[in-house]
Amino acid sequence: MHEEARDAIGRFYQPETVALIGVSSSFGFGHNLPRFLSDQGWGDRVYPVNPNLKEIAGLRAYPSVRDVPVDIDLACIMVPAQYVEDVLKECIAEGVKAVIVMSAGFAETGSGGKERQDALAAIVRKAGIRMIGPNCIGVVDVPNGFATVEILLKDMQPGNISIVAQSGVFGNVMLDETPALGIGIAKAATIGNRADLDETDFLSFYGEDPDTGVIVLYLESIRRGRDFLESVQGVSQRKPVLAYLGGQTEAGRQATSSHTGSMAGFRRMDKDVLRQAGVWIAEDPYELLETAKVFSLCPLPKGKKVLVVTASGSLGVMAADRIVEEGLGLAELPPSRLSRLREKIPPWMNLRNPLDVGPSGLFREALNAALVSPEADAVIAFPVIPWAVTSHLLAETPQVLESMFVDRVVLEKAASEKPVIVSVPGHPDWRDVCSRTLFRGVPVVSTPQTAVSALGTLYRYKRWKDKAKGW
Amino acid sequence: MHEEARDAIGRFYQPETVALIGVSSSFGFGHNLPRFLSDQGWGDRVYPVNPNLKEIAGLRAYPSVRDVPVDIDLACIMVPAQYVEDVLKECIAEGVKAVIVMSAGFAETGSGGKERQDALAAIVRKAGIRMIGPNCIGVVDVPNGFATVEILLKDMQPGNISIVAQSGVFGNVMLDETPALGIGIAKAATIGNRADLDETDFLSFYGEDPDTGVIVLYLESIRRGRDFLESVQGVSQRKPVLAYLGGQTEAGRQATSSHTGSMAGFRRMDKDVLRQAGVWIAEDPYELLETAKVFSLCPLPKGKKVLVVTASGSLGVMAADRIVEEGLGLAELPPSRLSRLREKIPPWMNLRNPLDVGPSGLFREALNAALVSPEADAVIAFPVIPWAVTSHLLAETPQVLESMFVDRVVLEKAASEKPVIVSVPGHPDWRDVCSRTLFRGVPVVSTPQTAVSALGTLYRYKRWKDKAKGW
Repeated sequence: MHEEARDAIGRFYQPETVALIGVSSSFGFGHNLPRFLSDQGWGDRVYPVNPNLKEIAGLRAYPSVRDVPVDIDLACIMVPAQYVEDVLKECIAEGVKAVIVMSAGFAETGSGGKERQDALAAIVRKAGIRMIGPNCIGVVDVPNGFATVEILLKDMQPGNISIVAQSGVFGNVMLDETPALGIGIAKAATIGNRADLDETDFLSFYGEDPDTGVIVLYLESIRRGRDFLESVQGVSQRKPVLAYLGGQTEAGRQATSSHTGSMAGFRRMDKDVLRQAGVWIAEDPYELLETAKVFSLCPLPKGKKVLVVTASGSLGVMAADRIVEEGLGLAELPPSRLSRLREKIPPWMNLRNPLDVGPSGLFREALNAALVSPEADAVIAFPVIPWAVTSHLLAETPQVLESMFVDRVVLEKAASEKPVIVSVPGHPDWRDVCSRTLFRGVPVVSTPQTAVSALGTLYRYKRWKDKAKGW
Repeated sequence: MHEEARDAIGRFYQPETVALIGVSSSFGFGHNLPRFLSDQGWGDRVYPVNPNLKEIAGLRAYPSVRDVPVDIDLACIMVPAQYVEDVLKECIAEGVKAVIVMSAGFAETGSGGKERQDALAAIVRKAGIRMIGPNCIGVVDVPNGFATVEILLKDMQPGNISIVAQSGVFGNVMLDETPALGIGIAKAATIGNRADLDETDFLSFYGEDPDTGVIVLYLESIRRGRDFLESVQGVSQRKPVLAYLGGQTEAGRQATSSHTGSMAGFRRMDKDVLRQAGVWIAEDPYELLETAKVFSLCPLPKGKKVLVVTASGSLGVMAADRIVEEGLGLAELPPSRLSRLREKIPPWMNLRNPLDVGPSGLFREALNAALVSPEADAVIAFPVIPWAVTSHLLAETPQVLESMFVDRVVLEKAASEKPVIVSVPGHPDWRDVCSRTLFRGVPVVSTPQTAVSALGTLYRYKRWKDKAKGW
């Protein structure tokens, strides 16, 4: 990606001044954004524009972008569709270089809308500026603390996952859930009808963005197929590219056309082509996000042998089933590896893989043995325990929990060398404690199936990379 | 099921007096149960037994079950494996009719343990009493407020789903998660090594239990295959039977043998036989629970035509894709059906199915139109909205939310006639508000894929029932 093109996209994420053109004093589209940006500490850099308002959300409003007393880095346009073209021209005349057109009513509504949209594209191309949209809600930059998407930045967890979502509302609500899922975000862009900037531009940008380690795509079609493939083949060698594709059936494709004005969704052949280019395709949006979390926090496995440590036999059984189905294998442990553990175990406990410690109180010890075993290319752990017990301990002696479940020093060293994935079905507060404190820094997911499938995806990505390098 | 057999199982769920034999004063197995039952209001009906203790969790302890001053309805035995036989004999001598052997160290540890377990089975058979276990944690009865499983009964949501789980810890932690998943439970049993009572007994019991509407099984093998099939063929005609099967691979089967002493897991053929008998088999434990919730709260659909109402185009696309993949179809609406809506919609909105209202504020109106449409055999709704907006409204004017999203009168009438499923990916607190207040009484799930797949399962169950009746 050329430096100039990169800087043009970077401008959307790190503006110094933002105009919000078409803010509304009544509830609905264009109403929340001024308050929202003001609440997040952007009050002195945001300039609402509406000729009928003097003030909104405590911010002074201006009749037009011409009246704003500073140079505008980023203009967000949310006026009704028929006025967008004039406002866009005004922004260009004022020297604005980055525009997000949030308004709907373009290609997604039919041929009249498509013409209006093509007119916008021609204008920005001629002016040499860049536009996101129309029919989108713009961008998020978590480390920089900026968003035109209505998310609560203070709740967001910073991380290295960057997202491109074709859809605005969907992108927004999935971002809303990332804190509860323990998922750390770098950047996001919702790209809507893609009259100018599209998924290929953001893919290339994220591919070189130092804050981005994992790229997540929600797409309902690909605008420039050949360019996208060329770009993704390069990017996926450096960073994992994970996708959910909407519009895989005729009914889904019809729904996309009235949604983001896409001409077509995805057919089986497209999916195969994308997979060959190194894109992993998820079956549902949670699988997409949880797999992204595992990629975000784990090194790639050297081999496919997994060691399972569990406080529930059933979870061990489920993991073993899925390990086989995923084409992974169970690591075999030489008896010597567990000799220290053998001295302590109760008579009912078996030293096998899955290593089921039940309620023996030996979880930490067994996990340590697993983490340091060179036979294991990856470790999956199930630190489950009845919530009636943990809630009592959390209230009275929370420090006991760490001593029961994890040796942080051993965990951190092992997790830097091999994938360690923790799965905690059960009470969400206990999963949260595991994610935020006991097992912080390693991915904590809900089901054993998710843990194993994500590990399988990690392993296949590693194989794909090696193969592409001729290994 | 004979009345006598039914009463014998009923005794486990509704005891008047409970002995806890082998309670421990130090942390670990047998330590929490006395405090746990006492906390739940059972203090005056619980009799801890341990010759070395005078008192535990504020309850007087007795040297042996012989010393307990009342008749015991249910004895929970948690002494080490080698003492279980003697304690069991003592219980029988004292006239106890229902025994839960929680202790591990039996068939799951190999041939010596298997012999000890067979001895217990012979003793209870001869005495004509019934036993759950060994290697289990017993039962839960939510409406009756009793549990030997360490769950917080006050947090549990009563409902009509009853569970049989072979595994104790897993059964426990999944029950822990049911309140957050909005899942209402009637009864549960963890059956461990099944030396006496097994899945077939509980299946037959639940089949006739008036509190049970949906039966959920977690099994790692079936002990009496022919009896089970015969029972399930009858029960599944009256109540849906949903299952997760652990031990579907060789590795999984090996793990089951050291877990609950099962001789074998499930092979493909077994699954087909179960399916023909009317059992639906889930791919993971969450799919199992969320599908059970949908069965628990929805009538069966009359046909397969679905109408989708969404505030996010992408979620509509995902639903449409999955509807086709599940063999369902999108209902076609005659234009007249939406005439009232047509007058109000903004120019960018399309009146199609999926009905994507975006941020128009017309969600409630569109949902009402869908709910009353006779063309729709089922309705799936996505009332999503950025959490930055809802959290603000919840804090200031929560009543606005109902007026934005749902007409409770129309919803309740429609939901009694056809399946209405609500899917709310996004912030978990918003999903919770939808589940507990706005859409209470209809199933609220997370992903569109879960909503549609559960509906597909509901539809196929209806078809299967009709076919079995010769329709």
